[in-house]
Amino acid sequence: MNLKAGNALIAQGGGPTPVINNSVYGVFHELRRNLGEGSRIWGSQQGISGLFENKLFDLSTVAEDSWAAIARSPGAILRSCRRQLDWEAAETAVQTLQKKEIRYFFYVGGNDSMDTALKISRAAHDMNYDLMVAGVPKTIDNDLPETDHCPGYGSAARFIIQSFIDLGNDVYSLPTPISIMEVMGRNSGWLTAASMLARMRPDDAPHLIYLPEVPFSVESFLTDIQKVVDGQGWAVAAVCEGLKDKEGTPIGIQKESRARDGFGHPMQGDVSATLAAAVRSRTGLRARSEKPGLLGRASSLLRSSVDAREARAVGKKAACRTLAGETGFMVSIQRVSEDPYEVEYGAVALSEVANVERLLPAKFITGEKNNIRDEFSNYVKPLIGGKLERYPRLVD
Amino acid sequence: MNLKAGNALIAQGGGPTPVINNSVYGVFHELRRNLGEGSRIWGSQQGISGLFENKLFDLSTVAEDSWAAIARSPGAILRSCRRQLDWEAAETAVQTLQKKEIRYFFYVGGNDSMDTALKISRAAHDMNYDLMVAGVPKTIDNDLPETDHCPGYGSAARFIIQSFIDLGNDVYSLPTPISIMEVMGRNSGWLTAASMLARMRPDDAPHLIYLPEVPFSVESFLTDIQKVVDGQGWAVAAVCEGLKDKEGTPIGIQKESRARDGFGHPMQGDVSATLAAAVRSRTGLRARSEKPGLLGRASSLLRSSVDAREARAVGKKAACRTLAGETGFMVSIQRVSEDPYEVEYGAVALSEVANVERLLPAKFITGEKNNIRDEFSNYVKPLIGGKLERYPRLVD
Repeated sequence: MNLKAGNALIAQGGGPTPVINNSVYGVFHELRRNLGEGSRIWGSQQGISGLFENKLFDLSTVAEDSWAAIARSPGAILRSCRRQLDWEAAETAVQTLQKKEIRYFFYVGGNDSMDTALKISRAAHDMNYDLMVAGVPKTIDNDLPETDHCPGYGSAARFIIQSFIDLGNDVYSLPTPISIMEVMGRNSGWLTAASMLARMRPDDAPHLIYLPEVPFSVESFLTDIQKVVDGQGWAVAAVCEGLKDKEGTPIGIQKESRARDGFGHPMQGDVSATLAAAVRSRTGLRARSEKPGLLGRASSLLRSSVDAREARAVGKKAACRTLAGETGFMVSIQRVSEDPYEVEYGAVALSEVANVERLLPAKFITGEKNNIRDEFSNYVKPLIGGKLERYPRLVD
Repeated sequence: MNLKAGNALIAQGGGPTPVINNSVYGVFHELRRNLGEGSRIWGSQQGISGLFENKLFDLSTVAEDSWAAIARSPGAILRSCRRQLDWEAAETAVQTLQKKEIRYFFYVGGNDSMDTALKISRAAHDMNYDLMVAGVPKTIDNDLPETDHCPGYGSAARFIIQSFIDLGNDVYSLPTPISIMEVMGRNSGWLTAASMLARMRPDDAPHLIYLPEVPFSVESFLTDIQKVVDGQGWAVAAVCEGLKDKEGTPIGIQKESRARDGFGHPMQGDVSATLAAAVRSRTGLRARSEKPGLLGRASSLLRSSVDAREARAVGKKAACRTLAGETGFMVSIQRVSEDPYEVEYGAVALSEVANVERLLPAKFITGEKNNIRDEFSNYVKPLIGGKLERYPRLVD
């Protein structure tokens, strides 16, 4: 075996997923088999911040039997960050990598992390430092372009689908006429759209689905809700946290005190609370809201087995390609067959994905813009891994 | 075997739990073994409403192998209601029972349902109709008096504890400094208090716990949060949906448009959203909120095995006692041993429990009134059934 020289660094950026640690293991495991005896494989603590603050963790100190528990754990085991680099910081990063003789750099993350990886890759090139840089896709939002889907999405979708099954069963069994549940998603509705898989019977929840891809109107929403309640006596709506009106203003109660996350994106949320209050005050109907929020990306019980497998595979593929001399890419997933579900792994230039958000295609949205077409289930179903808990009904 | 004559009626009232259907099965199974061939065992659709609307379901038509799926299902399989009876309605109910030759009536429910059972029991007595009435306890709030705990609580506690483990792991891994998660509970903090079992390490979530038993002050809350963040950089708080200030006014954004549930209780909620907004605007710290809401009582995956077993047992005991000629009681649970956990089932007069709410004893609340004492874990731990998913840490 032709072992390679040089050290490696793995970091996790942005919001965690239930399977992100599988990707770290995938990278680590492949590197360890292929790097020479003297090579070190570091984990960067709190994303790229660890590199600047010299908080690196030697991953070879992790006992082999601890990796199983780590891979099963949601959350970023190396901790994560929301930090963007400018070109100067990217140069500093490369100087530090150079000092530590790190020749392989992996960033497991979403759009923003891919931007960081791209900048480091370009800075290394400009500085003539031989560094292999790979992006390992990860996001529950599923909004990275040039890949069929993103690791993390399948598990988060599984959580959302099961939650709508559970919620629908509860609301059906007790006449709380209206429940509005909020789903994560800053600009894209992939995750909210997945809620449609909760439906089996004609009147199963969710009855209405609202996405950030469609300008939101409170008036239309109230009309929609009333119509469903008139028809069957109860209604469950799925609303994305990123809903915006036609002027682009986020729906939600925190307009006045809008906080921003570390990337300068507005912190959204409380859309469901706002809309439930609107239903109560405007229609007089009883309405409540639920917002699982971060729980939607934090559950090990609702992890998708397919997602876990793919998260590990994209890590492994990233390592393989860098070891073969490739740099400046993100691993991608291509669906080569839907039934039976089968994927192949490819690569796409970081410049193609950094800061690019892929929205839900309009073809999946119904004409009334308040629901998702049945065809979408073919896309999501293979990703959620295994059967869901579904409940019988006895009485009308 | 000495088989009994007469028909029976089983109803489910109030909010469902993950194990409430076990109680229906417990009652049904015991009755079927003991009632004569010609007896019918009815399920009342939508709680007591089914009796008035003549929507009764013949439970003997359920195939034996369907009961396993029903028992595993959260939500009320007969559907439920929020309906209180006055004395006149109670008399009408008894007349209807009499017409259908129903001699056994079981109401699976909480405080309000016990009031209905009591009224029907008294009306039957006054009308000289020989009716055996039993209350079967059920409530995730755990606020029925004269019983160690209530079926439904253990499963809901399991959900809340696992959710705080998951949330804490997520917040730790990404620097969102503050998350505030809301837990169900109108007036009692039993369920919110259970969140303390999520803690294993000294800095594990939740770091602060606020209960409706303690008058809530936003100022103290902000000071508490700031202190935790100053100490360890992040904070997770558990807040009960029923928090009220010292005047008794509910904390929450819906003060102005306060809706009421079917029993006339105000519909609460959105406490976490309100408090997260207060943190952001008052301290400048980034804060977000989560509110699993109804999901907390609707999950089959987080059902407690102990809870399921006990829910079935209280149903069975209710049936046994009525068959032995007892009436006007609710089945109670006594803890006879903590380690190993062991219970016995008793009975308490409906008049002792109807409309009485049992609050969390002050001895479990810390001196600062913002947390739960360690001793409480001895109470909750045996009820949640089985191990929780806990996650390792690798880096500081």
